[in-house]
Amino acid sequence: MKPQLAKGTRDIMPEEQILRQKIMSILRKNFELYGYSPLETPILERYETLAAKFGAGQESDALKETFKLKDQGDRDLGLRFDLTVPLARFIALNPQVRFPFKRYQIGRVFRDGPIKLGRYREFWQCDIDVIGTKNLVYDAELLKIVDEIFSELNFEIEIQLNSRNLLKDLLGYFGIKNDQDSVIITLDKIEKLPEQEVENELKEKGIKKAKELIVLLRKEKDNKKTLAKIKKYAKPETLNEINTVLDYLTKFKVGSVVLNPGLARGLSYYTGPVFEVFLKNSEIKSSVCGGGRYDNMIGNFMESEQEIPATGISFGMDVILDAIKSRGDSEIKTPVTVYLIPIKNMNECIPILQKLRDNNINSEMDYNEKNISKNLDYANKLSIPYVLICGPRELEENKLKLKNMISGEEKLLSLNEIIKLLKNINQN
Amino acid sequence: MKPQLAKGTRDIMPEEQILRQKIMSILRKNFELYGYSPLETPILERYETLAAKFGAGQESDALKETFKLKDQGDRDLGLRFDLTVPLARFIALNPQVRFPFKRYQIGRVFRDGPIKLGRYREFWQCDIDVIGTKNLVYDAELLKIVDEIFSELNFEIEIQLNSRNLLKDLLGYFGIKNDQDSVIITLDKIEKLPEQEVENELKEKGIKKAKELIVLLRKEKDNKKTLAKIKKYAKPETLNEINTVLDYLTKFKVGSVVLNPGLARGLSYYTGPVFEVFLKNSEIKSSVCGGGRYDNMIGNFMESEQEIPATGISFGMDVILDAIKSRGDSEIKTPVTVYLIPIKNMNECIPILQKLRDNNINSEMDYNEKNISKNLDYANKLSIPYVLICGPRELEENKLKLKNMISGEEKLLSLNEIIKLLKNINQN
Repeated sequence: MKPQLAKGTRDIMPEEQILRQKIMSILRKNFELYGYSPLETPILERYETLAAKFGAGQESDALKETFKLKDQGDRDLGLRFDLTVPLARFIALNPQVRFPFKRYQIGRVFRDGPIKLGRYREFWQCDIDVIGTKNLVYDAELLKIVDEIFSELNFEIEIQLNSRNLLKDLLGYFGIKNDQDSVIITLDKIEKLPEQEVENELKEKGIKKAKELIVLLRKEKDNKKTLAKIKKYAKPETLNEINTVLDYLTKFKVGSVVLNPGLARGLSYYTGPVFEVFLKNSEIKSSVCGGGRYDNMIGNFMESEQEIPATGISFGMDVILDAIKSRGDSEIKTPVTVYLIPIKNMNECIPILQKLRDNNINSEMDYNEKNISKNLDYANKLSIPYVLICGPRELEENKLKLKNMISGEEKLLSLNEIIKLLKNINQN
Repeated sequence: MKPQLAKGTRDIMPEEQILRQKIMSILRKNFELYGYSPLETPILERYETLAAKFGAGQESDALKETFKLKDQGDRDLGLRFDLTVPLARFIALNPQVRFPFKRYQIGRVFRDGPIKLGRYREFWQCDIDVIGTKNLVYDAELLKIVDEIFSELNFEIEIQLNSRNLLKDLLGYFGIKNDQDSVIITLDKIEKLPEQEVENELKEKGIKKAKELIVLLRKEKDNKKTLAKIKKYAKPETLNEINTVLDYLTKFKVGSVVLNPGLARGLSYYTGPVFEVFLKNSEIKSSVCGGGRYDNMIGNFMESEQEIPATGISFGMDVILDAIKSRGDSEIKTPVTVYLIPIKNMNECIPILQKLRDNNINSEMDYNEKNISKNLDYANKLSIPYVLICGPRELEENKLKLKNMISGEEKLLSLNEIIKLLKNINQN
């Protein structure tokens, strides 16, 4: 047979997976630091559950792109297309869960859509959400965690903040009361298309003073200026909501928050603050995080349809990875710190190998006793940082030759000296 | 709607996921210590790929239980039912990979089969494999890693070792040359069924001296006795293979290895050593790890059908988890170490919360300013080990009340003293 991947899927090679695991461990550490618990939900969900996100009669692209299948009992199933629907289903199914329920989840999601460069049918999402409270301090806390994580990853970020309510107020002021969702889709293009095109599209959708609206939606460098500009168009409770979040962000010492009245975020289920995060000084221009408050959505999954407020944010695993790669940080291709080369004395070298491993130094040995040059080539190709040559003469003298594969430097050292040296640089 | 899980799937609650992540991190650490690299492959594979494991015309239960689906382009896909097939497809697709290729993978697999207690349609596998070498030292290394991991998890284990070649030799001796696979399925029941039933089944399958075979297959306490018993039935190269693996295990200082000539392991693709690992002194009687050498299987995935030797072992994530739970170790229900209770002064407490988090202490605060008894109840239900009461009087005196939720003990301490104390017991 001719081996092939399924269309739109990919393997993640060790060198990328090592970096990915490093990012995931930073994410997990910070989520737990802020009191978020890990939850796992299945990839297979009932098709009915996946459809419930959008309410009765509303099919979205996400649902059209859902992988559908049946089990042997002819039940309709689908592969999850995000982590929010399974969370909502989980909450509906577990009334014993105590609110506020703060959870994180990192997992694969599936969309049977068109393939583009960097866009796959099977990809990762990483979400944190707070369920069961309308308190806006949690919206601010989510952004504080974002701030901490990107600072640990050595990125400067800009957090863009808006409120779905502000957008509603502004659209209402300009006479759009119904079908605001369709206008929001156009507004989502403000940063991507020439202004004239957006203006024309808005006019087609019945907004006469489209130019005025666009000026209003443009973000200013200074949040005070933006607030002053929108003041007369927004309801007092909307202004209060925005100011509350901004205040908490100040208390949490989150810098670089830009109020952007034009930030739409496509999804119709947002009900309050929405946010999107961008990297400064990076080749990556698309957002690395996005989210917002969705106080009505979980109710769709309940028998009682009671309101369960919620807010959450999603980290773009793949785009963060791309950003780190594009920075050209030193790339690790293997977890191995040191590679042992025996010279026809493999059995005598096993205790040395074991002592290194017992000291938590990631080690590998050529069990096949190939010649030195082949072995150096292998270590080089895998970018293993150190090689240890253990010839019979070296063993007799109780000294081993440690070669730094980057500098080329060689040293004759005792095993204890080697352990001391490598313990400090073990990549674990 | 009535919320429901898909049949045969389940959610993993935070308390179980915390334990699961702890196990996974021990597994990963040890795999990397022994030089194994992480690889990720997709959950979606071409149906043709999944079918290739069993060679032409051979459909197994695994394939019958494969979840089948189509993408929008009408391509036949399936959800992976193990991690070995994707690995073989990966090797076939990536001829640039350097051998020996040592990789690990932890991931979900799917089987549309009957549901039993503790048996799901979506579950986890955790595999380590070495590709591209016939050297039996790698088979021993796999078992050394098993030994290390269970010792770190505080379990005593028994490793059962056999060779598929020994089984073939013995069956050949007793006149079964064709359809050995069907006899092997019966032999797999030796430990589960009464001896008489196994004997009858073997007789039905044409083995006249079934009783003699069963006696021969029974493991002895002492490997030397077992070796002596089988010597005259086995080919010299088979004995050599077994002795080589046993020798390496001695060199690696792996104890508790029991040669079990009756160990069959159902899968027909094994070609050399096979192993299965059991816990001593545990309620869990089923095996916690299993694997073996499969030198011919990967060739099925190659265009050239060249032989690519391989050996590997799989850890039963769920059964290890059950074993730890059944031991009744102290259960952690939340990543939170300390829960702050403000007394109507939430805003003043934010800097305290932040200082704890800045010191890497997993912390949460009641942002909703509920009363103390409700808050103590919340902390208690979630088994949070410490509660910090931050009333206005305490704040004024620069002392906070730290309550140990297990002992009930309360102490009035400065924030720095609290940080010092909690840093040592933070569960991270």
